[in-house]
Amino acid sequence: MQSAVYAAVGQLVGQGHRETMTIPQVAEVAGVNPTSVYRRWGTMEVLLEEVAVAALTQGEPLPDHGDLARELDEWARIIADDIGRPKRRAYLRAMVSAREGLVEECPCWAIRREQADEMIGRARERTEATPSVRQVLDHIIAPLYHHAVFGLAVDGEYAADLVADVLRLATVDAEASAASR
Amino acid sequence: MQSAVYAAVGQLVGQGHRETMTIPQVAEVAGVNPTSVYRRWGTMEVLLEEVAVAALTQGEPLPDHGDLARELDEWARIIADDIGRPKRRAYLRAMVSAREGLVEECPCWAIRREQADEMIGRARERTEATPSVRQVLDHIIAPLYHHAVFGLAVDGEYAADLVADVLRLATVDAEASAASR
Repeated sequence: MQSAVYAAVGQLVGQGHRETMTIPQVAEVAGVNPTSVYRRWGTMEVLLEEVAVAALTQGEPLPDHGDLARELDEWARIIADDIGRPKRRAYLRAMVSAREGLVEECPCWAIRREQADEMIGRARERTEATPSVRQVLDHIIAPLYHHAVFGLAVDGEYAADLVADVLRLATVDAEASAASR
Repeated sequence: MQSAVYAAVGQLVGQGHRETMTIPQVAEVAGVNPTSVYRRWGTMEVLLEEVAVAALTQGEPLPDHGDLARELDEWARIIADDIGRPKRRAYLRAMVSAREGLVEECPCWAIRREQADEMIGRARERTEATPSVRQVLDHIIAPLYHHAVFGLAVDGEYAADLVADVLRLATVDAEASAASR
């Protein structure tokens, strides 16, 4: 059922129904019982988020080169390429427009935090100067996703500028910390 | 007509119709002729953006204290307070969900660029170390709007963290530029 429902969501999003689609419509397109969809996902919001996250994480291994600067740059470019695609923009817009008020946790955000945490953890073991996970999320991930949903250009060059800023922040923070020792 | 249409958009957004409302519906709620609305705004996207921008710029003078650090901090806190409100989140979400593909220019982004440009220009005349306008947009504005539309917390503390990072970037860039002279 899952792949039929995912495909149905993708089809409806592609046909421009991302803002209006309902679980009964998704079920009809998928050829499954609406009750099963309600039982499995509960709401359109949960379903849309799951599909978006699935689209996001497919075939995207975390860079691992023994050098945080290179890893962050590659990671940010992969994400920029991914979320800059029209289909991914449409998914992300569908996701935010399905939201009301605040969310406990955003799945995209949670995945990016885990990935940033892993790369930064490895870099710390190598005693490299590192930005904080918060800085990577706020200054690389948030601007990339902002550009994707607001319809501004998201490309490798933009990603590289963001990464360069965060790496300079890491250096100045490391120097400040060394100076205060 | 403008205020009746703005109020109708606000009412429909408030009633949860932000994702589905159409120009004929807005016209009906506003008690005006749909043809007039089409003639004046053309599409729901244009209308939603105009309303969002109007909601944004009301009663928000640009801080002017002769000190960029203080100005950016106050400015970012005002924006965080503003876009963190449920009504403003709803407007911003309505705005992005009405978009397709890329936009030429985002009105929110254009306004923030003008404001950043003005504050940074004044600071340069005072020979303060300044970040670039791009850095202010990418590392303060984009994360704030990202948090607003994705449903993450947006508050003064978050804004202050972003501003502190950007100010540290300005300092390190100024030092690097002085060292290369």
